[in-house]
This record gives sequence, C-alpha cells and structure tokens, in this order.
Amino acid sequence: MTELYDVAIVGAGAAGLTAGIYVSRKKLKNLIISVDVGGLTNLTNHIENYPGAGTQPGPDLMNKFFEEAKGFGSQFKYAKVEKVNKQSDGTFELLLEGGEKISSKTVILAFGSLPKMIGVPGETKFLGRGVSTCATCDAPLYKGKVTAVIGGGNSAVEGALELSNLATKTYLIHRREEFRADPITLEKLKASPNVEIITNATVLEIIGEKKVETLKLKTSFGDHLIKVDGVFIEIGHEVKADFIKGLVDLNAQNEVIVDLVGKTNVPGIFAAGDATINPYKQTVISAGSGATAALECYKYIMGSKAILSDWK
Amino acid sequence: MTELYDVAIVGAGAAGLTAGIYVSRKKLKNLIISVDVGGLTNLTNHIENYPGAGTQPGPDLMNKFFEEAKGFGSQFKYAKVEKVNKQSDGTFELLLEGGEKISSKTVILAFGSLPKMIGVPGETKFLGRGVSTCATCDAPLYKGKVTAVIGGGNSAVEGALELSNLATKTYLIHRREEFRADPITLEKLKASPNVEIITNATVLEIIGEKKVETLKLKTSFGDHLIKVDGVFIEIGHEVKADFIKGLVDLNAQNEVIVDLVGKTNVPGIFAAGDATINPYKQTVISAGSGATAALECYKYIMGSKAILSDWK
Repeated sequence: MTELYDVAIVGAGAAGLTAGIYVSRKKLKNLIISVDVGGLTNLTNHIENYPGAGTQPGPDLMNKFFEEAKGFGSQFKYAKVEKVNKQSDGTFELLLEGGEKISSKTVILAFGSLPKMIGVPGETKFLGRGVSTCATCDAPLYKGKVTAVIGGGNSAVEGALELSNLATKTYLIHRREEFRADPITLEKLKASPNVEIITNATVLEIIGEKKVETLKLKTSFGDHLIKVDGVFIEIGHEVKADFIKGLVDLNAQNEVIVDLVGKTNVPGIFAAGDATINPYKQTVISAGSGATAALECYKYIMGSKAILSDWK
Repeated sequence: MTELYDVAIVGAGAAGLTAGIYVSRKKLKNLIISVDVGGLTNLTNHIENYPGAGTQPGPDLMNKFFEEAKGFGSQFKYAKVEKVNKQSDGTFELLLEGGEKISSKTVILAFGSLPKMIGVPGETKFLGRGVSTCATCDAPLYKGKVTAVIGGGNSAVEGALELSNLATKTYLIHRREEFRADPITLEKLKASPNVEIITNATVLEIIGEKKVETLKLKTSFGDHLIKVDGVFIEIGHEVKADFIKGLVDLNAQNEVIVDLVGKTNVPGIFAAGDATINPYKQTVISAGSGATAALECYKYIMGSKAILSDWK
C-alpha cells in the first residue's frame, strides 16, 4: 500500500519551507515536492527586507529555511507535480512527472510564481548582478547609480518612482506609447526631474563584463546604447497552475483564490505565497502565509473525523 | 504647524516593526508609537519557528527588527495612544497619553494582543523560565519533560495534545467540569495514555527556585502539589482596542476586521498582526502581515489625490 502523508506541500520557496517547518513542529508527516529549493528569493542577491535577518544573499537565507524544515522533519522530493486528484476517501493523490504517485490527507499549494522575462541576451546572465525582477526588493541597492526599468504597468512605474528617489538617473523603457499604469502614478513619475521616459522602445541586449554596464535599445529613431548600473524587468509574473485547474478555484491570472487563513474552495487544500491572490510578492509575506496555511491545515486534520482513526 | 507624518504605526512588535521597515524603504516618513519594543515575541525565551533565523531569545530577534526599522528610517515615540480621530482633510490625529497630538496621513494598527494570565504567585516570575503562554511556540522545548496546560478551550486542549506527543506526561487543568474545546479534539486528548485531565481545579501557585518545579492546585479533594517542568497558560488573549472603538470595525473579541491586504473599514487605516482577526498569533505571521499592510498603505498614499501635492 502506498504511504499516506498528512501533508503534501507543493513548492519549496519561503512559503513552502515555512509551511514545512510549521507542520513538522505539529508532528505531521509531510513531504515537500519541488523542482528546486528557494524559489524566487534565490534571485535576490542581497535580501535586506526579511526582518531580523540582516542583509545576505537570497540563496543563503533560503538555505537556512531549508535546513530548518529538514531539521524539524520535512521530507523532500525533487519532482514536478503534474496533477492533483481528490480521492473518494477524502485524501488526495499527486501525480508526479515520470508517473510516481503521492498520497496525502491534505495539500498545501506553495508553488509560487515566475517573473516574466523579456528574453534578450544578457538578461539571465546578469540576474542578480545588475538585472533584477523586483524594484521593491532591490531599489535601495542602487542609491547614487543609474537604473532602467522595463515595463508599462503599475509595478514598472511604481518601481521607477521608487528608484528615482535613490538613483541619480532612472530610465523607464516601454515598448508602447500608452501606459497601463495608473495615471496618477505616471503623473508623479513625469514630474521627477531625474527620470527619462522612453516609449516605443524595446530592449535588444543587456551588455556588460562582470555586471550590467550598457543597455542596447531599439527605438523609432534607431538603435541606442545607454549606460546603466541596474535593469529592472517589471513586466509581471505568471503563475503556472495547470496542474490544479478544474479542482482549485483560480482567478484570471491563475492565482489560487484563498481566504485570510489560506483555505481554498477545496476542504483539505490550502495555499500560500506568491501562487495566491495576495498581490504582494515578498519573502516575509510568503513565509507568514505559509505558517498560516500550515496552522489551518493542522486544524483541519485535528477536526477531521474521516482521518481521526489513523492520526496521532 | 504640527508635523505631518505619512504613516503613524501603533505598536512595535513584529508587525509594527516590519511595517516600519517596509514604509521606510518606500521613503515614507513614519513614526512608530508604542509603550515597548518587541511585543509578545519578547515573552518567548527560545524562538525557533521564525524561519531563517535559527534559535534565539525572543527579545534578541525583536532587537534586530528594531535596529533594522531604525536603520531604514523609522522614528520612535514611547507613548500610549489614547484615541485616533479622522480629520476633515482626510488625515488622522492620534492623541497620546499626556496630551501630545500626532498628525498622519495614514495609520497602521499593530498594537497586538496580550495573553490572559491567571494571576497567581510565580506566574509572572517564571514567564520564559517554565511558564509559557503559547504551546505552539514552546512545546518542542519540553520533549521528555512533564508539562501542565491550564485552560478549557481549543487552544488549551490542542496545546495539551501537541505536548502529549513530546512530553513524558501532560496534565490538562481546567477550572470547570465542561470544556469549551471541540469534542473531537478533546476525544483525541482523552485517548492519549500519557495525559491526565484534572477538572474543577484551579492553580494556587507556581513554585520553583530558578525555574518552574511544582504546581499547587486547589481541587474538590483539597490542595495538591504536582511536579512539572513547564506550565502553559492557554486561557486566551485580549485585544485592547478602546482607543479606536467607534472608528474602526472590530469583532466581538475587539480584533480589528481586515481583508487579505490589511485594509480596515476606514480608508487610510490599515492593521496587521495579533490585533487583527487572523486567528494565528505567530511572529512570522505578524511580520508578513505588517509588510502587507505597509505595501497596501504605500499604494493608498501613491494613489491618493488629496495628498499628491506634498508627497514625494
């Protein structure tokens, strides 16, 4: 007979690892299934807004989360989840890539999101060395520097505004003429003397030796090179939730709809972190919601008559 | 003219200090008003479930939060807030004990809660040295020890159940015959061989030299002494929200009603941490909700026409 877990956690970023810590401390038998460890926090070179932990590389912080989850008793499996099915006895079956099946009484969805990339040379190479996908996270590192933000939505315009208070010069580069961002934010940005807005321009390449030095743009007036220290890609995130579609309620952006304590529409399935409708994608927020979902999951297991017999 | 803050944060526990870190990083001028620094986390001797930070005394962790908030630019005022009033221009006035007034465009409520105490000799003396108000936080420290839980609600019974998996023996001491806890949880507890439930009993004294050693009980059969290593007071929390009553919507337990991003019923007033309706009182959860409320507050300020002219 297949092993039955109390909790299967999908994803091993800040939310999933914190959920692992919390359910392990409740002595629930839990398996964290993920293709990697650390999630989006890994992309931050210097995380300085996870309170109480000072400044450190994102992967270092995530490695501490990982060691703690392991230390408290979480088990790990490095695999992709292809499908989650609800069984007739109230438990869940997770189908993994390759055909393996995992059975669990509950599921915590913490599979995060991926920042959309523009897909030009240099972009991946300099990630964490001048290329960032999060102005809120990394803006303070660019005090006195020259920065460029790519995008035309709220996160791009807000990011540029935030950078304009710190950087000596900030470019906002948008491929269209019109912005999706709120007009009032755009108005503030336009009023900033050290901001230059370049519309109808696309990035061709991000160039540098060891870190970002130059941005190659294609504009209506030909190709241009601009000197920058940092490039912020702010064109949104995508949540890859196909494996739960039809079972768990999602919004139009594929984000898992949760309530204040991480419950989804399916009893026994909880969600936390960037994969949910919470609009703010931050390590400490993901960690907090991972703890909340774990405690709500524990409450569900404690109160579930169906699984009373074999629990404890 | 009085100084106008962008954000007034009421409370300096995990939620308030994290909110301070986040609004400071957004270059918002903020004042944290509190009678102390550290909040409930200070009561935990060894916090080991704040992910990524290892094990340390609660006050040490809170001191790091404090230094970071200060470092990023939060100002502090050690005072009690007596009243929050909405002004005709959309800003808020906070009246402090002693008569001082603070003006702010927005308010983040993060004033936390206080665990209810039983009020017997030894209780306060041994707090953090055998007396705990949070089984979820401190249970793992009592592996192989003898523990007692005081209370009759869900948190007491769940706490006893959690301890029963770790401690050699756990007493549940309740002053009445009937329990408020869910019957199913109580049933599980009664089935635990190493648990002894003592009803119609009250605690007279918590006795020890340097740490808790003995519990003195008054029962229907006379006074009794039992040897214990740890005493968990699990009789609930109280939120002291008189200073915002009538302005901000509260539930029956005086907890601030918030949505997923920390908005209250009053535009410009946000809330986070233990003072809110989130049922789980944990440092990492408070920190996460403090960050969320701060980012939502920033969004409010960015989008507020009323205060456009003087912001940036």
